[in-house]
Amino acid sequence: MDDILSILDIVGTFVFAISGAMAASSKKLDLFGATFLAFVTAVGGGTVRDLLIGSSPVGWILDASYLYAIIAGVAITFLFTPIIRKLRKTLFLFDTIGISVFTILGVEKALIIDIEPAIAIMMGMFSAVLGGVIRDILVNEIPLIFRKEIYAIACLLGGGLFILLQSTPIRFELNVIITVCTIMIIRIVAIKFKIGLGGIDDEDKSFFKRTK
Amino acid sequence: MDDILSILDIVGTFVFAISGAMAASSKKLDLFGATFLAFVTAVGGGTVRDLLIGSSPVGWILDASYLYAIIAGVAITFLFTPIIRKLRKTLFLFDTIGISVFTILGVEKALIIDIEPAIAIMMGMFSAVLGGVIRDILVNEIPLIFRKEIYAIACLLGGGLFILLQSTPIRFELNVIITVCTIMIIRIVAIKFKIGLGGIDDEDKSFFKRTK
Amino acid sequence: MDDILSILDIVGTFVFAISGAMAASSKKLDLFGATFLAFVTAVGGGTVRDLLIGSSPVGWILDASYLYAIIAGVAITFLFTPIIRKLRKTLFLFDTIGISVFTILGVEKALIIDIEPAIAIMMGMFSAVLGGVIRDILVNEIPLIFRKEIYAIACLLGGGLFILLQSTPIRFELNVIITVCTIMIIRIVAIKFKIGLGGIDDEDKSFFKRTK
Repeated sequence: MDDILSILDIVGTFVFAISGAMAASSKKLDLFGATFLAFVTAVGGGTVRDLLIGSSPVGWILDASYLYAIIAGVAITFLFTPIIRKLRKTLFLFDTIGISVFTILGVEKALIIDIEPAIAIMMGMFSAVLGGVIRDILVNEIPLIFRKEIYAIACLLGGGLFILLQSTPIRFELNVIITVCTIMIIRIVAIKFKIGLGGIDDEDKSFFKRTK
Repeated sequence: MDDILSILDIVGTFVFAISGAMAASSKKLDLFGATFLAFVTAVGGGTVRDLLIGSSPVGWILDASYLYAIIAGVAITFLFTPIIRKLRKTLFLFDTIGISVFTILGVEKALIIDIEPAIAIMMGMFSAVLGGVIRDILVNEIPLIFRKEIYAIACLLGGGLFILLQSTPIRFELNVIITVCTIMIIRIVAIKFKIGLGGIDDEDKSFFKRTK
Repeated sequence: MDDILSILDIVGTFVFAISGAMAASSKKLDLFGATFLAFVTAVGGGTVRDLLIGSSPVGWILDASYLYAIIAGVAITFLFTPIIRKLRKTLFLFDTIGISVFTILGVEKALIIDIEPAIAIMMGMFSAVLGGVIRDILVNEIPLIFRKEIYAIACLLGGGLFILLQSTPIRFELNVIITVCTIMIIRIVAIKFKIGLGGIDDEDKSFFKRTK
């Protein structure tokens, strides 16, 4: 199972790199900018998590396979841009698997060093979403996840479920599968039914609301 | 006194969280964005300080009370937005107490590991102001303190005074009170008399100037 | 030679601080904003590198001479703004020496703790360019090096050459000189002949292209 998580980790890194490179394309960055953006999108979340919990040096420093996965992602985006554009739905699927795996790996890494569950869940969510936050800041946008989509909330719920199930006799493998599926279903349902979060200023003070 | 500083630290965190949530409201962020912004505003400064001086893991990772203070701040802002709007003056008072306490705690934490006074003072100021800087970057604004108000300068002067008084027989408790009052007075006087800093390009090359 | 590198390190810090202060001037920041921007431009790259490779605390925390070099850079920019404006060409020269030295020091620092060459080269480039990236983000611009100039690529090539030559009998001193000259020549040639990198979306998918 650890092997499968490692493979999915690299797959997630690769898909996140493609999403970073595509963001660079829409902002007219050059190939260096695109590679940098892809890099930050792919490893930014895990990097911040490692810095915060004091896991030093950060993960990708000691394992260049992340770097190679990212370069591969950028090269493929560069060479086959029109095809990548058409594959949006497939990429969305892999992206959702990616955030699920990043969440689980982040929660696990935090629990190993005896961090409280509430903070560990946050570390899982940070691992999954902060790469995208830094990407958006670098191209001068207010981060997308601050305004739209049940994305981070899916990670928090999935991370919470993962910790909960760990205290049951459920096997680790099954727990991973349940958590990944839960995050995917929450995200897909939220997009399908246009469910978003309310805002501070909203009149009706509802936690969830319909997005447009 | 350490107890009082700890309580004021949590109060400062709570008030900074409210300021972050209010900034989110003016930018039409959703509740996740608001909570993230509140979090960054409240603990961002201390986090950067801890990373820079190598205090690992960063403070709030091992103590979830910061997280709960922040969630409380966001919840209250969400539920009682109009009341929070009216309380601006009270909040300003607590905010100023907050930056004073953050400055002192930052200076102290740096001095413990034998950092030079000049750098320790800077770490105090960083603890107090960098949360707001990161908040402004996240919502795509040039940080307010780069353009307006004697805010960081008050922290630097307060931090310097704190270190100076530590080398005198003045008791720690009294030193804290003097420092907090000094930072508050500098900030209030600066706002009252519209005193700001000059800019690189200014013709008259004066260090201070009247702001509009 | 280590002495010369240390001196060039401080000179680079000083010149980067001037570049940060000038950026502040064009954005109408006050003197605090200018000093902060100068600071981040000068030490930002090395700081991120130290955090990533786990060198703790970060370099300038234990050595206030960087802080003093930066304050000197800001003071001179403030007092002699028109002269600094006229010296652009000289500053460009020192700036290029600065990025070369920062690249070499970054690569060296990474190699000491046994990091793979590919990642070490990246750490060299990060040391040289990330200060400018953070500066641009703070004043709300998409980082310049994501769009223009063969700047980071020069650092990557120079860093690679440096590692390559280290495995030859060439003396360290000569290696440093060759690397610095290589980075300078690449950058100057790129500017002279307006050579830039292609973008993800470019029709012709060429790696290099003429910039306007």
